[in-house]
Amino acid sequence: MYEKTVARKTVYEGRILNVDVLDVELETGRMSVREIVRHGVAVAIIPRLPDGRFVFIRQFRKPVERICFEVVAGNCDPGEDPVVSAERELKEETGYDIQRLENLGSIFPSVGYCTERIDIFFAELGEAGAPSFDDDERIESVIVTEEEMGRMIRDGEIQDAKTLAAWMLYQTKKAEL
Amino acid sequence: MYEKTVARKTVYEGRILNVDVLDVELETGRMSVREIVRHGVAVAIIPRLPDGRFVFIRQFRKPVERICFEVVAGNCDPGEDPVVSAERELKEETGYDIQRLENLGSIFPSVGYCTERIDIFFAELGEAGAPSFDDDERIESVIVTEEEMGRMIRDGEIQDAKTLAAWMLYQTKKAEL
Repeated sequence: MYEKTVARKTVYEGRILNVDVLDVELETGRMSVREIVRHGVAVAIIPRLPDGRFVFIRQFRKPVERICFEVVAGNCDPGEDPVVSAERELKEETGYDIQRLENLGSIFPSVGYCTERIDIFFAELGEAGAPSFDDDERIESVIVTEEEMGRMIRDGEIQDAKTLAAWMLYQTKKAEL
Repeated sequence: MYEKTVARKTVYEGRILNVDVLDVELETGRMSVREIVRHGVAVAIIPRLPDGRFVFIRQFRKPVERICFEVVAGNCDPGEDPVVSAERELKEETGYDIQRLENLGSIFPSVGYCTERIDIFFAELGEAGAPSFDDDERIESVIVTEEEMGRMIRDGEIQDAKTLAAWMLYQTKKAEL
């Protein structure tokens, strides 16, 4: 199973993403076209408070025209170690200090047309501080119990795929954390 | 929490996706820019065999340059009812007949920059048939138990976000299915 790149054309270069159109040769020898959104590495963090509750966020997301319930997340700066990005995003979006950070794995949001990888972390939090949002972000933090997460997922209140995927990874690995 | 669209420019029109650049006005009055990938609705299906095992697929994905383990999934044709798309994709990619199809909810793969919505289904399967793949897809079906899924997630063998998110929805709702 492989597709060989025969030609590549960048059709859009933007701020957070580029789009390439590739001509690829399949194993059968047949040619096909792949439209690929190029996007940098990102991080998402599931932060647990000393009392066992979790910090998530709510924010308006223009592409889907709605307020989303999400894990704390953000893009890595170019060349930035994802561990550093995770610590930075957590501090920026929630204001909490991190006692311990554990990698839970990596996910790819859209393997069919996008290069983005999101590294998922679990964070044990310490004392609260004050969040310092980016100028063009309006983010609200939400503190929930594990039971509330289950109820919200069942009721369809969590529709962000990275949040559901990160929670799945956490559920699978929490016994070892 | 809202962002008002002030201007919109389509910067790329492709086969499966378009890219728009929007000027938006935030609640504070401040202006910002949003790059948005426009993508149609898709479906993903978790199909269970009469013996309790599940059918997933493996295929090479050019954007991430690797073979991915994924739920059965595909794009809806323009205007197509997602239920019809789900039945079609399941038949095409696995060849099985569907006894019962249940909606598990919807997910958004990349709320930060993409409009795509994926409707998630659970399918109770009947007898096997022969898959009929698209010409430029090379897809292998994989039959796994629930225990094997848990082991694969723990070992980082499942990195596709829609697959992890769909499995999370299935886990949360399986008692009622």
